[in-house]
Amino acid sequence: MKKVILIIIDGLGDETAEQLGGTPLEYIAPKAETFNMFAENGLCGLLYPIAPGVAPASDTGHLSIFGYDIRKEYPGRGYFEALGANIKPKPNQIAFRTNLASVIPKNKELIVIDRRAGRISGEEAEELYRALDEKLSENGFPAKIIHTLEHRGVLVIEGDEYLGAVTDTDPHEVGVPICASEPWERLSPSEREMAERTANILNEITKLAYDVLNKHPINKMREERGLPKANVILIRGGGISKTIMSFREKWGFKAAFVAAGALYKGVARALGMDEIHVEGATGTPKTNLNGKVEGALRALDKGYDFVFLHIKAADNLSHDKKPLEKADFLLRINHALKPILGLEDTVVVITGDHTTSSIRGRHMGLPVPMVIWSKEEMRRDRVKKFCESACAEGGLGVLRGHDLMQLILDLSDRSVEYGTYPSKSKLVLSVF
Amino acid sequence: MKKVILIIIDGLGDETAEQLGGTPLEYIAPKAETFNMFAENGLCGLLYPIAPGVAPASDTGHLSIFGYDIRKEYPGRGYFEALGANIKPKPNQIAFRTNLASVIPKNKELIVIDRRAGRISGEEAEELYRALDEKLSENGFPAKIIHTLEHRGVLVIEGDEYLGAVTDTDPHEVGVPICASEPWERLSPSEREMAERTANILNEITKLAYDVLNKHPINKMREERGLPKANVILIRGGGISKTIMSFREKWGFKAAFVAAGALYKGVARALGMDEIHVEGATGTPKTNLNGKVEGALRALDKGYDFVFLHIKAADNLSHDKKPLEKADFLLRINHALKPILGLEDTVVVITGDHTTSSIRGRHMGLPVPMVIWSKEEMRRDRVKKFCESACAEGGLGVLRGHDLMQLILDLSDRSVEYGTYPSKSKLVLSVF
Repeated sequence: MKKVILIIIDGLGDETAEQLGGTPLEYIAPKAETFNMFAENGLCGLLYPIAPGVAPASDTGHLSIFGYDIRKEYPGRGYFEALGANIKPKPNQIAFRTNLASVIPKNKELIVIDRRAGRISGEEAEELYRALDEKLSENGFPAKIIHTLEHRGVLVIEGDEYLGAVTDTDPHEVGVPICASEPWERLSPSEREMAERTANILNEITKLAYDVLNKHPINKMREERGLPKANVILIRGGGISKTIMSFREKWGFKAAFVAAGALYKGVARALGMDEIHVEGATGTPKTNLNGKVEGALRALDKGYDFVFLHIKAADNLSHDKKPLEKADFLLRINHALKPILGLEDTVVVITGDHTTSSIRGRHMGLPVPMVIWSKEEMRRDRVKKFCESACAEGGLGVLRGHDLMQLILDLSDRSVEYGTYPSKSKLVLSVF
Repeated sequence: MKKVILIIIDGLGDETAEQLGGTPLEYIAPKAETFNMFAENGLCGLLYPIAPGVAPASDTGHLSIFGYDIRKEYPGRGYFEALGANIKPKPNQIAFRTNLASVIPKNKELIVIDRRAGRISGEEAEELYRALDEKLSENGFPAKIIHTLEHRGVLVIEGDEYLGAVTDTDPHEVGVPICASEPWERLSPSEREMAERTANILNEITKLAYDVLNKHPINKMREERGLPKANVILIRGGGISKTIMSFREKWGFKAAFVAAGALYKGVARALGMDEIHVEGATGTPKTNLNGKVEGALRALDKGYDFVFLHIKAADNLSHDKKPLEKADFLLRINHALKPILGLEDTVVVITGDHTTSSIRGRHMGLPVPMVIWSKEEMRRDRVKKFCESACAEGGLGVLRGHDLMQLILDLSDRSVEYGTYPSKSKLVLSVF
């Protein structure tokens, strides 16, 4: 069985920039020698990380590629944010991400004027979160709220009768009212009942938060200093599941990861992957790319049979609408990946968690290029370049995120013929 | 957010005609300049309107492309025929399409000898339908039957205990017996019970119809004139759902449509789209194509953000096995679409509701070409021509009908990242 490196370049796919005469990957294709070596000697295709037209968030894009059914197994962004803050939700708890925000009341609604309360300081936020947490407990809510960083916090609801399949109270824009949390559509009757109970609690907590925070001395002082009051919390990031199965249990790999961004660490930790620390890995365009690649190779030497290598900054440069800088950064990744071409008995996969358009500055539901390569004999296709338009003609076709892990199992010689049902336990005989 | 025009060319895809050295679209590709402009500056792919190998009917092909799950949300062709005849089924009613037909009894069966009763006149049909309707009511059937045009009618069954998931009594050919209606396969136990009740009623109504019609004075006269008796009704066009969600509720668009054929109007009306009337739009090869395109542009000016433009006659020419005439008509469409290339901030989609083979003269389950274009920067692929073989190498890949609306939402800047759960309602506070 071969080992596996899955390299996810965040926001890899893009749109065609007139400035470049192509996407950033198409622009660098003539000189991206390492990428092209993988493409020329591997199998290429396009990947819709979730489904055609569905724009993935960073956590859902990764989970889908890791083979999780996010319609059923997604515990929500709040869960990963909690883990990132070293709060591990128990199986009877659900976690949400919160923001301290500024609202003004108008016609029985709370109009959001700043989703981060003027980027309130951590000290003030800490005190406000603590005041709210005391009131939650005084009022008998089965909930705890914990400050993490700056305006951010985590809300945990405890009880088997709750389900996180609810909409956000955060309207995700300013000038509009706070939303009422509601159960998702298309739940089973019993799920719906639990989600309704949860949504009601979130709505009651929102009202309590306004009562408690609006009159808090810190907000009186902020008002006197001409600063927006941090007088409510916005809640978001629910999910359908309460826990998530480990990567090992799901796919049988002993996995490690190399990643710098907090959310990606949160996702990988949630799946039980072990962290490989790399000095100078920052998640920015100046990150230590060579170090990250070395870290991945080290993990393989240490006995891990699956390494997830995450490279972040291509996404940031797309959000900043800088296609040329993105192209330069992708070319640097291309150079840094060169040592991987020397690996034997290893399946290398290079793809992205979503397209981020450096024209629109946002995630999109368009497919990303993917290549699967190993040094040994394998099927090759006619694709010579690693970019969106070339990979459209690849031998893997146009797939969806949840297809990838099965291909990885197969190409790393772990697949079992469909219709063969291996057991995990041995027969123990008492007669001998 | 961009506006959207979805252009559906009925029966667009085809098979390779030796006479043309390609499909009709491939035959005109060297000179189809407008089609090619869309292809060269947009994203192409192939679309199975329902699923690979599934030949869509005109209503199911459209519904699937509009993003409806026709396994669960399809109210049946009878529903659309009823709407087309200005009969709006209530939520506790189910509608079927009926034909007056000619049968002869043989060994306790009714052998169909003419499925349209010798294309009986509207006047005679009207009287026969009225006579049957009276008997339905006298005999206590929870049913009404209404004449529409020529041999055609609509049968409406009323009651919450009925479900239209039943097979047709119409055998769809002559020389064979009328069929017994039966529940569909793969229903839940409660659905099955309701469908059984419905099928029984349809079978009883069929027997009653023969009793009433066979001895009706009009049929005595027809017999004397040597005309086939209109002595039974054939019933068809059931469906699983009783109503259908509006397009606005489903996708958030304020939609208008330009279409000439009755069934397409019925489908668009059923989804709550507003009609844009165009003088000279006939659904035939001589239709006013320029007028239809102008109508679509007018709708965008009037504030609609989604326009469905339907062009019919390519399908008719395929049924008539005239690939060259189809090619000529497609080239005329190509010319008529030129003004659309001038649109700004609009996502243009061109595709078909199904392949109609002008070799076999029938709908097929092969994919149709599709292109998504907008004037502004977007991802482009390498495809230069709009035809089956060129689009097979497109950057969207090979998709299914239900994928298209998500791509339209994304490319028109309406998508929301998966993992973000916007609420549809506002939080209302009682304290102010």
